[in-house]
This record gives sequence, structure tokens and C-alpha cells, in this order.
Amino acid sequence: MKVLKIPEATVIRLSVYSRYLEQVRRKGTSTISSEEIARGVGVSSAQVRKDLAYFGDFGTRGVGYNVIELYGHLMKILGLTRQWQAVIVGAGKLGSALAMYAGFAQRGFKIVGVLDSDQHKIGQKLEDLYIEPFENLGSVVAQHKAEIGIITVPAEVAQNVAEAMVAAGIRGILNFSPRSLNLSDDIVVRNVDLSVNLEILSFYLGSRK
Amino acid sequence: MKVLKIPEATVIRLSVYSRYLEQVRRKGTSTISSEEIARGVGVSSAQVRKDLAYFGDFGTRGVGYNVIELYGHLMKILGLTRQWQAVIVGAGKLGSALAMYAGFAQRGFKIVGVLDSDQHKIGQKLEDLYIEPFENLGSVVAQHKAEIGIITVPAEVAQNVAEAMVAAGIRGILNFSPRSLNLSDDIVVRNVDLSVNLEILSFYLGSRK
Repeated sequence: MKVLKIPEATVIRLSVYSRYLEQVRRKGTSTISSEEIARGVGVSSAQVRKDLAYFGDFGTRGVGYNVIELYGHLMKILGLTRQWQAVIVGAGKLGSALAMYAGFAQRGFKIVGVLDSDQHKIGQKLEDLYIEPFENLGSVVAQHKAEIGIITVPAEVAQNVAEAMVAAGIRGILNFSPRSLNLSDDIVVRNVDLSVNLEILSFYLGSRK
Repeated sequence: MKVLKIPEATVIRLSVYSRYLEQVRRKGTSTISSEEIARGVGVSSAQVRKDLAYFGDFGTRGVGYNVIELYGHLMKILGLTRQWQAVIVGAGKLGSALAMYAGFAQRGFKIVGVLDSDQHKIGQKLEDLYIEPFENLGSVVAQHKAEIGIITVPAEVAQNVAEAMVAAGIRGILNFSPRSLNLSDDIVVRNVDLSVNLEILSFYLGSRK
């Protein structure tokens, strides 16, 4: 995979800032300082300024940031001013849950297809989508101009599914399988391990005993 | 919530380091440098040293870290040398998927109960667990000494479920609902927003066009 210049931790925080600014904007606040953003999301104000500085000079010294402007900048930086089409391969419990996860649509990610190779699953309905045969991957991706693929299949078939996605035109993959993928450098891959979230809890639970 | 001294980003990286060291250990490697860890997980070696320095002085200058020792330290720091019992409230698609997610057990998290208030779900089987009525929360938590609660209910009931968990003795909550929880400072809460993962993809996809 390509070496990416902006640290992933910064990108995650930009996403957090954008959600916070959306709340602030709804309350009708027009300007905000880095200190207020920092307090709102639980990081240091130096961190907020450092993260934003990667992308230019947004604030005015002594005045702060214009909330609507900064929110707009962040959404643009995150690539969220457009809609993204995504397909899910693997219509098990997790794939089905993700297909119906309302939070995706709210941030501009539309699930345009859910595919599986299990004859028993094909044709079943998940909200307004029908589970389609895996063989249709190429046509679904082409028809909807999908660029993102979500992998929720067992580890042993994850690499094959990823290669089929890339062949179909997918450029970014969210991999929920516990298998790391071996793909060319121009494909963006993010591996999601849900147990990391529990480990963060166990760390803080353990350290306060 | 309590102000926590160790940055969450550090805890996430410790979890990543521990997985990498587990792989290295399986290959039979006995010592490793911070540079090798850094290359293996994609951060700077200064970051590795800084993260580890929060918890003491583990390595030997010019020699590096003993792989088994460092792995053991990290697992202990993360609270993973013991088993944690967890309950899930909300047996929809996501709750059911998490109840059967193999990755949790591999890192020492045992799901001891899945509860729901929907009469149609109660009694259904998820691998070796039966979905139980939400009213049983107190007895399930007490019987299994569960300390972690996972919330996969709709936003409008998340706060009530969280309060019931705390009343039952839960000390840490993983919240998959899009509602922030208002709980006393001694409860550790981690909100999981699955769309953040897609936003990281869209950022990197957008920035390489």
C-alpha cells in the first residue's frame, strides 16, 4: 500500500471534529476557538491546531474559526461533500447489519449492492436491497459506479473477494475479515478489527482498579 | 467521564503492536528493535518508543526488545491476561453479529449473554447462547460477573439500557448506538461509529484522485 502523508489518527480526529462542528452549527453558534473544539471532543487545543494546519490556515487569530466554513472545509477534506457508492460481499450477520446501518447513509455512503455465494441467501431482502449472487459483482459495481467494497466473508475467501472487487473497479476496501489483503499499491485498504474497541475498554477498566 | 492520562491513540497502537508481536513471536524471533516494530505496523520508531515509554523502560539500548517479554507486558497493560465477561443488549443484526464474532474470544472477551425486549427474538439461539429477556439483565450480569456491556439498541432506548447496565454492575460500555450516553464518571464508555472507517477510506480515495 502507498505511504500516506497525513497520519491516520489525524484523519480520524478530523472526522470527530466534523461531527462536533455539526452539533455546534445546529445550535446556531457562528465562531469557535480551537480550545472549545478541543474541550468538546476531548483532545488538546494544540492537537486541534496541528491537525488543521495540515490543510491550510483556517482560523483568525483572536477570533477563532467560522463554524460553517470550517465544517465545510472538513467535509470537503474528508471527501464527504459527494456521495460514495459501496458494495458489500458477504451477507452473513455482520454484512447484513452493515447493509442496514443508518449511519452510513447519513455521512454519504450508499450501499448499492450486497452479494453472497450462498444459494440460500441470494434473493433475500435487506431493507430495499436483494442479496445478489457473487457472480454479479462486476455488473453491480459498473452499474452503480461503486468505488468502495466492504468485505464481510470468512478469512479463507477474503483475498479472492478482494481481487474480484479490484478487477471490477473498486478502489477502496474496508476489510472486516481477520485476514490481511495483498493488493496493488493503488488500492486503499482499511482493516477493521472490532475487538480493538473492547481492548480500549479493558485497558481503562484495568488501570482504574 | 474521567479524564484519562494515556491518549486513546496510544492505547489503540499498543493493541496493534501486541498483534504484530504475536505474529513475530510465532515465527520464533526472540528480539526486535523499535524500528522493526515501526516498519511492521506503519508508524515511526519514535512513536513506538514514546508509546512504550508511558509504561516503563522495556528495551535494552543497542539490543532492542525481548519479543516474548514485550508481548507479555503489552497484554498485561491492555488488561488481556485475564478473561472479561460481556453482555450484549439488542439482538438485532449488529448485536447478533457481535455475539458470534470470533475475534472477541481470541482476545479474551467472552459474550455471556444477549438480551432483547422483543418477544419474537427471545429464546432464539445464537451459537451457544439463547437470547434472553431484557428483564434478566441483573441476574445475567451477576451470575457471570460481567463487567462489560455492549449496546446495540436503537438510539431512543440507549440511555435507558446504559443506566440498567450500570445498575446491574457493568463498569465499561461499548456503545454502538448513535446516541451519546450520560453516565457517572466511574463508568468507562467507548462510542463506536462504524462510518468513521468509511470516512478514512473516502479521505484517502479523494486525496489521490
